[in-house]
Amino acid sequence: MSKVLRVDMSGLRVEIEEAPEEYRLLGGRVLSSHIVAREVPPTCDPLSAQNRLVFAPGLLGGTAATTSGRTSVGGKSPLTGGIKESNVGGLLGHKLAKLGINAIVIQGQPPDRRWRLLRVDAEGACLEPADELAGLGNYDTVQRLLAGGPPDRLLGGRSPCVVSIGPAGEMRMAAASIAVSDPEGRPTRHAARGGLGALMGAKGLKAIVVDDADARNVEAAARDQYRQRVLDFSRTVLDDPRTKNMSAYGTAGVIRFVNRENVASMPTRNHRLGVFAEGDAISGQRIAELAPQRSGKMLPCMPGCIIKCAILFNDEKGQHVTSALEFETVALMGSNLEIGDIDGLARLDRLCDDIGLDTIEMGNAIGVALEASVAPFGDWRRVADLLEEVRRGTPLGFTLGGGTELTARAFGIDRVPAVKGQGLPAWEPRTLKAMGITYATSPQGADHTAGLVTARNVTPDTLLKASRHEQILMAAVDSVGLCQFSNPTEADMARFVSAQYGVSWGPEDVLEMGRRVLKEERDFNLRAGFGRDAGYLPDFLRTEPLHTPDGEMAFDLPDELLDGLWDF
Amino acid sequence: MSKVLRVDMSGLRVEIEEAPEEYRLLGGRVLSSHIVAREVPPTCDPLSAQNRLVFAPGLLGGTAATTSGRTSVGGKSPLTGGIKESNVGGLLGHKLAKLGINAIVIQGQPPDRRWRLLRVDAEGACLEPADELAGLGNYDTVQRLLAGGPPDRLLGGRSPCVVSIGPAGEMRMAAASIAVSDPEGRPTRHAARGGLGALMGAKGLKAIVVDDADARNVEAAARDQYRQRVLDFSRTVLDDPRTKNMSAYGTAGVIRFVNRENVASMPTRNHRLGVFAEGDAISGQRIAELAPQRSGKMLPCMPGCIIKCAILFNDEKGQHVTSALEFETVALMGSNLEIGDIDGLARLDRLCDDIGLDTIEMGNAIGVALEASVAPFGDWRRVADLLEEVRRGTPLGFTLGGGTELTARAFGIDRVPAVKGQGLPAWEPRTLKAMGITYATSPQGADHTAGLVTARNVTPDTLLKASRHEQILMAAVDSVGLCQFSNPTEADMARFVSAQYGVSWGPEDVLEMGRRVLKEERDFNLRAGFGRDAGYLPDFLRTEPLHTPDGEMAFDLPDELLDGLWDF
Repeated sequence: MSKVLRVDMSGLRVEIEEAPEEYRLLGGRVLSSHIVAREVPPTCDPLSAQNRLVFAPGLLGGTAATTSGRTSVGGKSPLTGGIKESNVGGLLGHKLAKLGINAIVIQGQPPDRRWRLLRVDAEGACLEPADELAGLGNYDTVQRLLAGGPPDRLLGGRSPCVVSIGPAGEMRMAAASIAVSDPEGRPTRHAARGGLGALMGAKGLKAIVVDDADARNVEAAARDQYRQRVLDFSRTVLDDPRTKNMSAYGTAGVIRFVNRENVASMPTRNHRLGVFAEGDAISGQRIAELAPQRSGKMLPCMPGCIIKCAILFNDEKGQHVTSALEFETVALMGSNLEIGDIDGLARLDRLCDDIGLDTIEMGNAIGVALEASVAPFGDWRRVADLLEEVRRGTPLGFTLGGGTELTARAFGIDRVPAVKGQGLPAWEPRTLKAMGITYATSPQGADHTAGLVTARNVTPDTLLKASRHEQILMAAVDSVGLCQFSNPTEADMARFVSAQYGVSWGPEDVLEMGRRVLKEERDFNLRAGFGRDAGYLPDFLRTEPLHTPDGEMAFDLPDELLDGLWDF
Repeated sequence: MSKVLRVDMSGLRVEIEEAPEEYRLLGGRVLSSHIVAREVPPTCDPLSAQNRLVFAPGLLGGTAATTSGRTSVGGKSPLTGGIKESNVGGLLGHKLAKLGINAIVIQGQPPDRRWRLLRVDAEGACLEPADELAGLGNYDTVQRLLAGGPPDRLLGGRSPCVVSIGPAGEMRMAAASIAVSDPEGRPTRHAARGGLGALMGAKGLKAIVVDDADARNVEAAARDQYRQRVLDFSRTVLDDPRTKNMSAYGTAGVIRFVNRENVASMPTRNHRLGVFAEGDAISGQRIAELAPQRSGKMLPCMPGCIIKCAILFNDEKGQHVTSALEFETVALMGSNLEIGDIDGLARLDRLCDDIGLDTIEMGNAIGVALEASVAPFGDWRRVADLLEEVRRGTPLGFTLGGGTELTARAFGIDRVPAVKGQGLPAWEPRTLKAMGITYATSPQGADHTAGLVTARNVTPDTLLKASRHEQILMAAVDSVGLCQFSNPTEADMARFVSAQYGVSWGPEDVLEMGRRVLKEERDFNLRAGFGRDAGYLPDFLRTEPLHTPDGEMAFDLPDELLDGLWDF
């Protein structure tokens, strides 16, 4: 049975509804965005009782397809004011799918100021008091909630999954993330973007524990066919040279490429430069060099992932510092703050994971604060102090925790590295101009995962078409619940969906699903009061060119071109 | 000769340009908004070198028509991100007009981090170093700049006019105002709304001194006719019962009306209630009762004003506390913070004038902060402490000085009393529903002076038409430079313009000017990325009704109705 787990925080009630028939072929982003668009008034305040927080596993969740356990977390974003789908790995998606849950919908607001915990298992679901968890970081929260379980279940992803917020989410800061535990029982996977941690905080929900111990496996309509698809796809993934690089160096393996002078896509000193002199010191290759002497390794974020791109980073004594040290973190908290100390960066990553903060948003917000002379560039310990201010909820901490735009406005800074209120990822729109199209037009705001296109030296029209296609494709990938790093084609996805659900989808059906997502999300934003996309790009991308061997490069595509993205 | 005084802060150059022919019949808001729309890229950051700050006297500036010396201050708003016209009285408008200056346009950004002073007189204009004024409040700034002049010129508006920013503007806070000195040489008149003080601060301009000592009078094309218009209009104004109330009690005279249970338009406890139990204690009538024993009095804000609505408020010893203690200040800093101590309120008003802050924005921002338990409601001394934090630029001060929306976002508050980023004035959209239409649709954001309509018990369509007409009319009033409190009709304005400029305008020409203003402003905002008007109204106006004898009242006009405002 497919079901929706509806949690009403106003009445402190949990209800399990049979999922409407139309949800049968909806999952992940197409489902989370559909529920938000249908159930949330677009003009409501994101922190009000009217907003809803949705967790939806992808269409292939719970199956053996590699990387198919990703989860879409949705709601009206406290950061952008628009619709948000924040995609996360970790143990959650497979477990929800195995429990037959299409979506968890958290709604209302608690009648008191107390914290709750939601427990979900094969028996059902219930809310429990959780005031004793208040103020805890994600690491302590997960440890407490997983303590006492059978030790063998803490291995290989068989332990329950903990979904939690840290102090930032409790304080409803717009840069707050939602943490999802990984196979080693650590809160290192985050639905980070868009401040959904603040939304979970506004619902009075500190954590969710999902235990699929007695759940049944997800069965495909055409079992043998599906099994064959799984094998074929795994082979394709393993043969892909991109996979090899990811498996060896993680996402940080891209640094040597983006930090080249002619790519200049390594945000440096609050996006003033595109090349960081100390880039090599924080590259995936450098991290890989350190790994043997420190017992560092590469981890999968969910069972069954054959890519294993998550860097587990230990200190010089071999003690765990952080897992899932990502390129975006290294770029925004590193080069963007002129920090070239990889050990310092690993500590900043752990702090963000523990406090429950989006590292991209914080890297941008702190970059702006450093520009306002709050602290010097290049000193990771001072940045750690700033993050501790966020944890304590000092006035400065509230400002930084409010994200890039809020920090810039508070300090009167005129260079605001954000689009639709969301801080810029590392991929640079001045040199990789399609990224400017994606950032401006995506209903998500500045989001590299919405449609990453690195094409250069092609016509503006080609860039536009590439951004449009990639946005549609990624919306589909996020709906079936595969990881973007498995690089599925629309044909791959069509074959999987067809075998799993006993339908005959072709590639065009997959793309149509992606188009539906984008249109439904955009319609929500328009009803929420969003205007013309081109108006949201920060001006400095147009007026402050980056120096490259190919000349001065600024984002120079006309507004009219961007308008054309929606002509589909 | 008509001229534009162009001040390029990048090159530290001042140029006097002959005004284009099309400016001859443009003044005040129609001119300031036209210059902004023509010269400022709509997507630029408001604090960047590309933004421009415009001062434009009205079409009737410098003439004998009562209240005709108002000034429009324009730019892209650091608070709303949209176009801004902030209208101000005081000595400025008449003096600029007498000097033959259609507009001052401040552009660029200084090459260093130093402060400048702009001096303008009949000889020309020049920039001077002004670092010695840095950090001073507006009171000290004005005193220093007017010191040493002939004492008799400090009376009756013959002294130079000082336009200045306080520490809030220097720190580029989005709630910062621009102060204009009054006939008694005090910085009590403010172009307060929209954070234009931050824009002046971003230009590195601490103050402007305008001296019209050797300027010639402004002559009408049809002198005798104009003189007759002046007399007729003055008689009309004096005969108007609204004038009598204004002259006796100032704008605060309205409190007894708006605080009635069935009007419920006195914002109380962060807009949770519409009636304040201590309303009488802070009413204009109460202030008038105190006046005789304290040498309180009513002042004009400019020479030639026969209304004299500005309350000069002294303490119990007869020492000056503040001038121009307005209804909006008393409501937003008073009832909205549950402060019923008029002496305390007068001190808060002076603090805002001195630091250079919009009292409406600060009343809303602090209301939100009190909701976040930063301090208790009802204690004016604690509020004074918060304003001193703004003056000192502490992290909390930066948050509050960033305005309502920024404060709400920093503290995770879901009731944000702002429209298009600008804090709500006192006039309540739940009971006076046309105000919801005006706030939502005005290109200025929540602004009662954009179109104040108090009609009740009429059809939604009538409310819409009333808001539209009033917005058009007020745009015209702000363009001719008359005070809204003189209540000119379109026919009055047409007669004045015709006699002054030797043209034959009818009422329709005046309204056409108003329509032009609104359309040009809206077009700017659309190009800046603004979306559907209805999306900007804070949700609590729809979801939290006010209790009135006529039942529960919420703002309940449909989005589609609001869309229709632009059908003209």
